[in-house]
Amino acid sequence: MNKLLVFQTDFGLDDGAISAMEGVSFTVSSELNIRHLTHNIPQYNIFDASYRLYQAINYWPEGTTFVSVVDPGVGSARKSVVAKTKTNQYIVTPNNGTLTHIAKFIGIVEMREIEERVNRLKDSELSYTFHGRDVYAYTGARLASDTITFEEVGPKMELEDIEKIELFGCKKIENGVMGQIDILDVRFGSLWTSIPYEDFKACGFAFGDNIKVEIFNRGTLAYSSTINYGKSFADVPIFTPIIYMNSSYHIAVAINQGSFAKAYDIGVGKDWTITMTKIA
Amino acid sequence: MNKLLVFQTDFGLDDGAISAMEGVSFTVSSELNIRHLTHNIPQYNIFDASYRLYQAINYWPEGTTFVSVVDPGVGSARKSVVAKTKTNQYIVTPNNGTLTHIAKFIGIVEMREIEERVNRLKDSELSYTFHGRDVYAYTGARLASDTITFEEVGPKMELEDIEKIELFGCKKIENGVMGQIDILDVRFGSLWTSIPYEDFKACGFAFGDNIKVEIFNRGTLAYSSTINYGKSFADVPIFTPIIYMNSSYHIAVAINQGSFAKAYDIGVGKDWTITMTKIA
Amino acid sequence: MNKLLVFQTDFGLDDGAISAMEGVSFTVSSELNIRHLTHNIPQYNIFDASYRLYQAINYWPEGTTFVSVVDPGVGSARKSVVAKTKTNQYIVTPNNGTLTHIAKFIGIVEMREIEERVNRLKDSELSYTFHGRDVYAYTGARLASDTITFEEVGPKMELEDIEKIELFGCKKIENGVMGQIDILDVRFGSLWTSIPYEDFKACGFAFGDNIKVEIFNRGTLAYSSTINYGKSFADVPIFTPIIYMNSSYHIAVAINQGSFAKAYDIGVGKDWTITMTKIA
Repeated sequence: MNKLLVFQTDFGLDDGAISAMEGVSFTVSSELNIRHLTHNIPQYNIFDASYRLYQAINYWPEGTTFVSVVDPGVGSARKSVVAKTKTNQYIVTPNNGTLTHIAKFIGIVEMREIEERVNRLKDSELSYTFHGRDVYAYTGARLASDTITFEEVGPKMELEDIEKIELFGCKKIENGVMGQIDILDVRFGSLWTSIPYEDFKACGFAFGDNIKVEIFNRGTLAYSSTINYGKSFADVPIFTPIIYMNSSYHIAVAINQGSFAKAYDIGVGKDWTITMTKIA
Repeated sequence: MNKLLVFQTDFGLDDGAISAMEGVSFTVSSELNIRHLTHNIPQYNIFDASYRLYQAINYWPEGTTFVSVVDPGVGSARKSVVAKTKTNQYIVTPNNGTLTHIAKFIGIVEMREIEERVNRLKDSELSYTFHGRDVYAYTGARLASDTITFEEVGPKMELEDIEKIELFGCKKIENGVMGQIDILDVRFGSLWTSIPYEDFKACGFAFGDNIKVEIFNRGTLAYSSTINYGKSFADVPIFTPIIYMNSSYHIAVAINQGSFAKAYDIGVGKDWTITMTKIA
Repeated sequence: MNKLLVFQTDFGLDDGAISAMEGVSFTVSSELNIRHLTHNIPQYNIFDASYRLYQAINYWPEGTTFVSVVDPGVGSARKSVVAKTKTNQYIVTPNNGTLTHIAKFIGIVEMREIEERVNRLKDSELSYTFHGRDVYAYTGARLASDTITFEEVGPKMELEDIEKIELFGCKKIENGVMGQIDILDVRFGSLWTSIPYEDFKACGFAFGDNIKVEIFNRGTLAYSSTINYGKSFADVPIFTPIIYMNSSYHIAVAINQGSFAKAYDIGVGKDWTITMTKIA
């Protein structure tokens, strides 16, 4: 392990929760380098937790340990696990769908259930609502600091038991592709779709093309226009829409120095689909 | 000292203030491991500063130095101090009530006044409004890095001079307990009361009980219903209220995957009291 | 270099972008101490990026590397550069005005263009929209970790090619001074003006003076009153306006424990000017 321990939660940064997780971890080992992916995952939103992990993990070194706690089922029968990726990184998380994107786009080679009788903060037995501190941060810190081995996390689970959310992906349609609005580039209001760059390119779209874009909310047309496909925002005038490939190599739609999501009141998730087709 | 230096303020994260505090600290010593408890304490809210410190500090190792700057009286006669806890941790703070919860629930064994003639950033004499940078971060960094000893902070003060906020605590009433809504689990809208788990349990309440909950705003009834006492959110259906013990071992009220505070427009502080009584 | 690498962006903290920048940097070198100035610069606001850098940089040790990415022109012809300051600190940034305050108030002694053929994350050639990760964090990490020298960043540029925003500064007027509302102390709503403390003092203003303050929005009077000039907030009663010197040694206007900006609906930038004159 490389001592890097990266936290992600939906706890926000307004109280002492994240600090308690850090304190527990440094009590395990003062050698850890604790980092924060984001703590602003929308509450209970497992899809976003899965996506943000995937968005960041590729850029981290081998041997990094991630702890992701978006856990609407805390206290239920959902299992606490540690997954090992093909790229030799570790994710400590409730097995509730958080591993979906990693499993699909990176690959998980082994998963173990956290044996809480040994991998739980001492004297925390009465605490039933903060597994982020008592189980996940504690176990992540022990793993990242080589206090325990991956095998000592607990018993091996079947890879088919990885809980997964259904992903929309990309559908080929006449003269183009169809996808879902997966998530926003929150700060800038850009729409990140589920359409991989490779599938888009395979349709024959090329930089400079004008492309017909339609966005649907539960099947009802919510936006329709022709948008230019550019390399970067500067390829279109300010305040003009643009289709581009985002930093995770999927197709996205933005307004140069504006917010597409706000401008046209577009949301995310399975209710929001998008088609991109050639102009006849 | 263990080189861990933990900052808490009400400065927010939108400007360069926290970074200036970090820079000053690293200029004192490059060996420090600087961490952040929260910088989103509501402005001037000393109660919350005191509570959040208490919420986190138990989980940090011995020898950790905390710097808490919620300082509505900057420039007044309020003194700048360093307190040493029973558990051998240090808190650098204005003596304005920030030490209340630590003093009551953990214990302070010694307090010293910061002697600003020696413990103040060089050439900062003209700066009257940013003691967080010029006095508190600077002194915290010097203490945490063993540049100065605790004795070199300045003269010893009497422990009875620790400035304290009045805490509501827990009152025994007929068939139950009465407390105050101390603070929110901000992100999830749960109400954290001033009722310790032990006092609640002493009333004979047990997991699974249905309990009558009444919340008052300045004595006027603001909420009244029967709520189940569970171990964790998953013990009740989604969108259902639950009484539970929070991660700081006090009694709390939440809605499973909802916000109790928003649902019933409940606030915090001395105007907001809560009773929990047995159903006849 | 001292291994300190400080990031500033307008990306916010809600997604995986900052974490990807950290991951890239730790992949370059595990020895780096990565810190965050702020990621809440208002989107595309180069003035604020320039100001916040200047607000913090003075307090950091020699040999620190800063990476500032507020880059509305990503994908345009704007150049990516590294500037070396008089105080031996380094700033990695698009050359778009972000260096304005540093150039004026601290001094830049050398600037080099980032040669992207060598200083760009491997296999990122297809990524056109996230130079923060692919170019700036990567180059900053290589420089801060001594993987490359300053000379290896790329060819030297002329200092006159530093792109600069026009600064309002301070104008002497009859019986006083005129400045601009540069920026807010966001959290507390104080107005930070472009009037340096030294120019203000040179007018003969002294602590305790009552001073006539007028604020104009595009030349139209937006606020007019007499305000006391104090050392710190505690010099005036609670909820009372005060003129003071801010932590960056410029003149500012606040309400003790209130928000001046909200109270009188005051904005920032070149449309907002302020005069302070002696009372006859």
